[in-house]
Amino acid sequence: MKATYMYGAGDVRVVDVPDPSIQQPTDALVRVVRACVCGSDLHPYHSMPATPGGSPMGHEFIGVVEAVGADVTTLGVGDFVISPFAVSCGTCEFCRAGLQTSCLHGGFWSDAELGTAGAQAEAVRVPLADGTLVKAPIDETADDALLASLLTLSDVYGTGWHAAVRGGVTTGSTVTVIGDGAVGLLAVLSARQLGAGQIILMGRHQVRTDLGREFGATDVVAARGDEGIEQVRDLTGGLGSHIVLEAVGHRPAYDQALGAVRAGGVISRVGVPQYDEAPVGFGSLFGPNVTLTGGPAPVRSYIDQLLPAVLDGSVVPGRVFDRTMTLDETPKAYSAMDAREALKVAVRP
Amino acid sequence: MKATYMYGAGDVRVVDVPDPSIQQPTDALVRVVRACVCGSDLHPYHSMPATPGGSPMGHEFIGVVEAVGADVTTLGVGDFVISPFAVSCGTCEFCRAGLQTSCLHGGFWSDAELGTAGAQAEAVRVPLADGTLVKAPIDETADDALLASLLTLSDVYGTGWHAAVRGGVTTGSTVTVIGDGAVGLLAVLSARQLGAGQIILMGRHQVRTDLGREFGATDVVAARGDEGIEQVRDLTGGLGSHIVLEAVGHRPAYDQALGAVRAGGVISRVGVPQYDEAPVGFGSLFGPNVTLTGGPAPVRSYIDQLLPAVLDGSVVPGRVFDRTMTLDETPKAYSAMDAREALKVAVRP
Repeated sequence: MKATYMYGAGDVRVVDVPDPSIQQPTDALVRVVRACVCGSDLHPYHSMPATPGGSPMGHEFIGVVEAVGADVTTLGVGDFVISPFAVSCGTCEFCRAGLQTSCLHGGFWSDAELGTAGAQAEAVRVPLADGTLVKAPIDETADDALLASLLTLSDVYGTGWHAAVRGGVTTGSTVTVIGDGAVGLLAVLSARQLGAGQIILMGRHQVRTDLGREFGATDVVAARGDEGIEQVRDLTGGLGSHIVLEAVGHRPAYDQALGAVRAGGVISRVGVPQYDEAPVGFGSLFGPNVTLTGGPAPVRSYIDQLLPAVLDGSVVPGRVFDRTMTLDETPKAYSAMDAREALKVAVRP
Repeated sequence: MKATYMYGAGDVRVVDVPDPSIQQPTDALVRVVRACVCGSDLHPYHSMPATPGGSPMGHEFIGVVEAVGADVTTLGVGDFVISPFAVSCGTCEFCRAGLQTSCLHGGFWSDAELGTAGAQAEAVRVPLADGTLVKAPIDETADDALLASLLTLSDVYGTGWHAAVRGGVTTGSTVTVIGDGAVGLLAVLSARQLGAGQIILMGRHQVRTDLGREFGATDVVAARGDEGIEQVRDLTGGLGSHIVLEAVGHRPAYDQALGAVRAGGVISRVGVPQYDEAPVGFGSLFGPNVTLTGGPAPVRSYIDQLLPAVLDGSVVPGRVFDRTMTLDETPKAYSAMDAREALKVAVRP
């Protein structure tokens, strides 16, 4: 089958690989109906060292079950499924606590130890299928818009939701969202759903921030750094934002969050940090009693809650997809997202 | 009057200074009945550069009101009061939110801008007295044990309580407390009051950890670093502690907290950080969705809640004081605490 591999920074290729197969009795084999490229895929696209064997890419997909192992009990051939970006057993301490990203038996896609490949492919072997996959009551003839919205439950919508939930967004909160990528925009949507009163979106791309306004942003700040911080403070009575949702992952976004947050407030990060150390001392987090939270979203635990409104069309998170390409065109999807010509590209095998 | 000043690392002196006086109509003048030396006073005791003018010391005291300014409405001459370690107006956005340490008009003791001096003295001028001071229904003839317990409401008990509250301690929590100083021990007491099921106290001084056991610690880990982390993990089913209360402030304690906390858990810091940057990336906080919280405790907001059990003797936080010295002996109080000959020294002017 065809699958997408990255061989180094800027080097993405669609290659022929052996078809996946059931290897464990808890596996399922899923034919991919839609996959996509993630903002986080752009981090290795910028920095991956040359890797002769390549690395399979993609961690978001929806599809149809084609085969199941003998121990799979909740899924059958023909089921339409949403796959979270983390594989999880569903039964360990962390899965039961709703933190499937820390599953004691699971892991991520493209994980050598777990033997997972990538989702930007024609099919995917899914380990721990009962714990990982969520059935959706549709089939692949559903319209493109609905498929796109379902695909966001695989990562970006659940990730934006996680940011808002971990940030403690509630009725009347003042929320600042850093980043106008798909996750940032869906953090805006999530904050609105959770009742935020004021939602300030920090982003520089008007097409995106316009969508952010439609998702619920009350204000847009295009400036960055000290100027951006100043504008957020002006918009919040000089005190800063109760909650800052950081959906970028670069260190300047962390510093911007520190500047924008109110004393006693919360910085909730879902952008994968591209840094290890950062200020946490008296002058940054400690003195003003600012809480730092967030991490990889356990989207598996949010899908049941978010699915009904997606199915009935009352929220349309799939609007973050502005392009659809074929699997052969995946390299172009990376370059279009990297050049910010596309916000998020769906891949149709 | 006599007051304690620090002139550099290890150089504490009791000197004669002008008597304080009412300067603003919102001031009160308080005669100190008990003050004390704080673990955080030992940080400058180790590192303060030589300072010819010296710096007034002390931020914890209880005493009797001797005079009030014209605008003070809730206090009168003769009232017995507890003073939090932060001055606060009681009316701004942050005071109303219970975060008096971020008061828009307040500050700390020994603050040049606010014009405050230190509490290790015979008397103290208290700005914003209505917002800052809390009356207690006793007088200075109360017994030493009760005075000691009331004095902990000025800082260390409220700080331990803040750690536990911010950490989200609730019925059945597994809590690890790093540090067997007065704050760590009162974090143990607070965690017990809030219903923690397992409380692991990390500390090396048996006299202190024995008191920690009396306050509610179920386990004591004397080892530090990787060995200490390993022991905490062994005591928590290999998964780590839901909540870690960090009551030291040095970077190794931060690293120990990272090692001891469970995925999805909380590190709540109340030890004043003696570092600026620390790991916050994928391998430390982000990957396992660990929350970092805490800061200077708004003890003012906790006194009303904690006072009744102190007054009726059902909790005795004052047990953290193992010595009482006269004001003249304050330099000896510093050296005794620094040498760990004393846990916490009360100062009686």
